[in-house]
Amino acid sequence: MRDIIRTKRDGGVLSREQIERWIGGVAGGSVPDYQSAALLMAIVWRGLSREEEVALALAMLHSGRVLSWKDLGRPTVDKHSTGGVGDKISIALAPWVAACGAAVPMISGRGLGHTGGTLDKLESIPGFRTRLHADAFEAQLRRIFVVMAGQSADLAPADGALYALRDVTATVESIPLIVASILCKKLASGTEAIVFDVKCGGGAFLPAPDDARALARELVAVSTALGQRAAALLTRMDEPLGATIGNANETAEAFEILRGEGPADVLELTRALGAAMLVRCGLARDKADAAARLDAALRSGEAARRAEMLVEAQGGDPRVVADPSLLPRAPLETAVPAPRTGFISGWNARALGELVIDLGGGRRRKEDAVDPSVGIRLLRKAGESVAAGETLALVATRAGGEGARDRVARAVTIGDAPPPTVPIVLEEVTP
Amino acid sequence: MRDIIRTKRDGGVLSREQIERWIGGVAGGSVPDYQSAALLMAIVWRGLSREEEVALALAMLHSGRVLSWKDLGRPTVDKHSTGGVGDKISIALAPWVAACGAAVPMISGRGLGHTGGTLDKLESIPGFRTRLHADAFEAQLRRIFVVMAGQSADLAPADGALYALRDVTATVESIPLIVASILCKKLASGTEAIVFDVKCGGGAFLPAPDDARALARELVAVSTALGQRAAALLTRMDEPLGATIGNANETAEAFEILRGEGPADVLELTRALGAAMLVRCGLARDKADAAARLDAALRSGEAARRAEMLVEAQGGDPRVVADPSLLPRAPLETAVPAPRTGFISGWNARALGELVIDLGGGRRRKEDAVDPSVGIRLLRKAGESVAAGETLALVATRAGGEGARDRVARAVTIGDAPPPTVPIVLEEVTP
Repeated sequence: MRDIIRTKRDGGVLSREQIERWIGGVAGGSVPDYQSAALLMAIVWRGLSREEEVALALAMLHSGRVLSWKDLGRPTVDKHSTGGVGDKISIALAPWVAACGAAVPMISGRGLGHTGGTLDKLESIPGFRTRLHADAFEAQLRRIFVVMAGQSADLAPADGALYALRDVTATVESIPLIVASILCKKLASGTEAIVFDVKCGGGAFLPAPDDARALARELVAVSTALGQRAAALLTRMDEPLGATIGNANETAEAFEILRGEGPADVLELTRALGAAMLVRCGLARDKADAAARLDAALRSGEAARRAEMLVEAQGGDPRVVADPSLLPRAPLETAVPAPRTGFISGWNARALGELVIDLGGGRRRKEDAVDPSVGIRLLRKAGESVAAGETLALVATRAGGEGARDRVARAVTIGDAPPPTVPIVLEEVTP
Repeated sequence: MRDIIRTKRDGGVLSREQIERWIGGVAGGSVPDYQSAALLMAIVWRGLSREEEVALALAMLHSGRVLSWKDLGRPTVDKHSTGGVGDKISIALAPWVAACGAAVPMISGRGLGHTGGTLDKLESIPGFRTRLHADAFEAQLRRIFVVMAGQSADLAPADGALYALRDVTATVESIPLIVASILCKKLASGTEAIVFDVKCGGGAFLPAPDDARALARELVAVSTALGQRAAALLTRMDEPLGATIGNANETAEAFEILRGEGPADVLELTRALGAAMLVRCGLARDKADAAARLDAALRSGEAARRAEMLVEAQGGDPRVVADPSLLPRAPLETAVPAPRTGFISGWNARALGELVIDLGGGRRRKEDAVDPSVGIRLLRKAGESVAAGETLALVATRAGGEGARDRVARAVTIGDAPPPTVPIVLEEVTP
């Protein structure tokens, strides 16, 4: 290990064998954390070559079980988002794409930092189980072709050990380490195609478009080297996505999409990601063909039915897809009046994300419990006009919502003219 | 700690409080090794500012006991060498400078890598104790004004913990970490003045003169900031120092110097370092005054007598200073004949240092035992002429010396003309 650390410290390239020895030692416990910590910092410093990155993702992937769908009769495809505020896309997207003929073995994460997590949102459905053993995960995919669960302990265990170490040694912010960590988790589900939603803007982990584009290219290139059919969409995360931030209210909004309702931006992004997924997994010739298939699955009600099957299979009441009143709701709802007349320039996604965490809807530390019932509903978004005193937003809280109301009011910018409109999908990155 | 690591990772400057919190946590065990390992690698990457370096040395110094000599009635002074082959200087220097009126509380190290260590050399004297508790160290200095011992566990304990971690995480090679580690150990002895012997050349840890000069300047600057009267000599380490390499034979050679004998290069360097020490601690006006005092102490026999007091105080037979036959001697001595006629261009110090380790005279791992009796005696050095077949050197071994003989023969270069002479002290670095 000392030679491996020294090689990377001095800017050298690690062989596949050295990377396998390291990751094998991490998974087996024979490499002490302090040596991994020094090596991780050296990687933050010196980076990894493309070959090293591929070898690292592969070694982490093969540190545990890798699911396989050879005789499934359907192409598999998954989606990964780098995380944003109000991002409930997966909850509508997975059943919708499954309704179009794909199989979606989706491994999702929890909220950390100012952004929420799909697992927390799904768990707002009473009874919904997100901890599935690999056998149950496999059986469900074979039966209904969609499953959404957390990373089980037997999938990519080296990633879990390294991730925890990166968190406490300030070695999280490294593109090659981020890429390897994302890919080994996602690929352990056995998917053959993957579409990345890489966000930029004030509410994203990488606000600068150039940084986000670099990550998108890296994800697509390494995925491709690992045998995936991959693409990435570079998307905007300035305002929150849709009208809701919180767990139960975001889940309800995702189901609105499947009923042909819901906010335009959520619909647009879900459709764009769905189309990319159908093209990548070979179920659509091109984007127009994919759009037609998505529309058909929506109109026929097949997308919503697939969501009901998903909820039922994982322990929830399937009627929740049609009836949001089955979801928990915080007892108090406080109106946020517009401080002035004008046009909404935009909402500060990060500030609203932080507020929802402070209300109990997210976690500051891993062990924190999450309250699914609290959240924010935005009644006006960028470009819409508002009169002073009109209600701009509603905050759902457990108790006195005055402080929250004031923080929401501070998160909006109102100008004299509508801001320029910008598309939500900025560009597509393909191999 | 995560913020501290992140700050250094991003090239920022750590505050004195942050450095104290880290080192306090290292000494107290509350900072886990993996966080220190990540921070050490970030320091290798980003370096430390002068202020950070001073704060680190101070924090490590104050992680344990710091001796104090306020009412000693003599100025204190110490010497530190960055390590070379055949470097037995300290053993002659400490009693000699003490004989001139200084007090020398010297904390020495063991051999590691291809260079020997003063403690190993002193322990070749039967009965000589180098592990002294701080109280015994203090009592001896007050009685005879010279003591030479290893770092006891209560002096700079954070340094011991960090040094072990640096060794296994490939974070040894960092000038600021090296400087802080040297200074906290040396200053824990309570010395008020210090002279550094920073070596360059093929047998030194930093072969390039520019690197060695940078380390010398750093050592002097940080020492000065810590309140020391400091200076450094930049000295040559191409050939071994003197005629001997090994433990018992080097100790014997150091005592030769105190009897007015011994090789010219050892005498020259010991006098130069002694003069710098006397000037720094205020016992001599200038180098000429210092030289006169050193000569007087040598001629009067006071230097040798002080060495006898030192040996006796630490458990050895004081007659060893006059009689090298009291030191252990390996049973076999093999002659190394000159492969050709000519002038010695030089000996490869590193190759000879490695050979003595392989003969058992040094250690490959910390836990190795050292055989004091083996070693090499060079009968000719750079600039001297030799005829083919004449004996160039003698190798003392436990068993069959043919392999050693051949390795010694390969370590010499013989040319047709004498090489240019170069002084052993290249320059002096003062604050």
